[in-house]
Amino acid sequence: MSDPRPIGFFDSGLGGLTVLYSIRERFPSENFIYLGDTARLPYGTKSPETIRRYTEQCIRALLKFDVKAIVVACNSASTAILNSRGTEREIDSPVPLYNVIEPGAEVAIRTSTSKRIGVLGTRATVASNAYARAIEQREPNAIVFQQPAPLLVPLVEEGWESDPLTNLVIYRYLAPLMSQTIDTLILGCTHYPALREGIAKVAGSSIELVDSAMAIAQMLEKDFSQEEKLKIHTTDTSVKGRLTLYATDASPAMDQTAKRLMKDDHLDTFQGFDL
Amino acid sequence: MSDPRPIGFFDSGLGGLTVLYSIRERFPSENFIYLGDTARLPYGTKSPETIRRYTEQCIRALLKFDVKAIVVACNSASTAILNSRGTEREIDSPVPLYNVIEPGAEVAIRTSTSKRIGVLGTRATVASNAYARAIEQREPNAIVFQQPAPLLVPLVEEGWESDPLTNLVIYRYLAPLMSQTIDTLILGCTHYPALREGIAKVAGSSIELVDSAMAIAQMLEKDFSQEEKLKIHTTDTSVKGRLTLYATDASPAMDQTAKRLMKDDHLDTFQGFDL
Repeated sequence: MSDPRPIGFFDSGLGGLTVLYSIRERFPSENFIYLGDTARLPYGTKSPETIRRYTEQCIRALLKFDVKAIVVACNSASTAILNSRGTEREIDSPVPLYNVIEPGAEVAIRTSTSKRIGVLGTRATVASNAYARAIEQREPNAIVFQQPAPLLVPLVEEGWESDPLTNLVIYRYLAPLMSQTIDTLILGCTHYPALREGIAKVAGSSIELVDSAMAIAQMLEKDFSQEEKLKIHTTDTSVKGRLTLYATDASPAMDQTAKRLMKDDHLDTFQGFDL
Repeated sequence: MSDPRPIGFFDSGLGGLTVLYSIRERFPSENFIYLGDTARLPYGTKSPETIRRYTEQCIRALLKFDVKAIVVACNSASTAILNSRGTEREIDSPVPLYNVIEPGAEVAIRTSTSKRIGVLGTRATVASNAYARAIEQREPNAIVFQQPAPLLVPLVEEGWESDPLTNLVIYRYLAPLMSQTIDTLILGCTHYPALREGIAKVAGSSIELVDSAMAIAQMLEKDFSQEEKLKIHTTDTSVKGRLTLYATDASPAMDQTAKRLMKDDHLDTFQGFDL
């Protein structure tokens, strides 16, 4: 049985396109709808109540497109789904609602030998404790060390990914985690994979990096294989799925960023969207 | 004749409190209402249309408090008032509507000998050309050099004001302006005065720094002295005016920041405000 309905993606900005890219590579026949709440970004500096309100609005908006599943590709927004009661969902949805925290936590546990796991995230993600809870529920022996890294997103947006100055900032944020002899580090924000090279250089070869884009792609793959959870669009691999891009504050500069993040010259432009 | 109505202040975040502080020091008997649009900050990375829409909403919200004047303390929001048609106002208001661009431009012209003037601002402020237009309309011989400095706000918010790393970033942004031999530099964002020491060190003694908080305070002083434009609350200097704080995303962390920026332990806490 096939299901042509699109998969909805939502992020505070464009960083979630890196998650979408990973998933679209594995499932090129699927249709996708992406919504970036660029008029109100970033979420990572805002209160849990405001992040939750925004997340609910964006999920409701995606449901109107008759999506078959929703991926909350933003770590800060994902905390609003998992908040305080652990695996029990805070926000209801009639279709499967994926977040990036749980798959990231699961991959980190599988990756770590010492079970000393570090998390780099926005202020909101770290303050929510969502990664620590998701990890400790699944692996009670794990010890989680968290570090807010609020300057990394603006450094990526400034285009200084390979700047020596950025490496100094990375070092400042990683030093407290490294002193805890972690062996695994979760890149807990969609922007951080852009800094992967610098982070890997500072962290050294004894620390494995976990990218939630990869983790969520694996989880979707599993659910597609169990057909009762999620059905693919078509088994005809020659079918190329549609990708529709919406943003609450659309601009031509965004189209450029989208092309860069999606490594694709044939993207449609962002359409404006009012929440 | 006295006018007890409050003066409304509006900023995307809390940086405008530095402007309010300067004005309240000169006019301690006045009543003030401050509105920070913290649920949607920053404005400086968003499109002119979105900044304009947010600015109009905040101005309408302040007008409901029966204010006698409104100070748009945010540079990025101020560009929405002046946009494209120069001194002609884009947004109508039944009470005097102050922005920080025009007074900053006027002080810079008075300060500069060579009329080679630099502007450091957010992406939105620089892209709007508002400072360049305001300066060139008043002083056609002036040459304005602009530099977007998007990392400075996050560095201040991280609390790294006197960090050597911040000085490296300041140097990176100031170098192109200094190569143009400017003699005056406008700090075109309410956060930048927090970096005044580092900026002054990098700029050296041949460049004067212009702070829009000081400039707008001088302009209000002039209008209070011409009573037909603006009337003071009372001539009784023993009267201490009220200050009411509103934020679209209020949090206890904000109250701490407010106390720091206002150098005052006796501030009320922020109240939530829905736009």
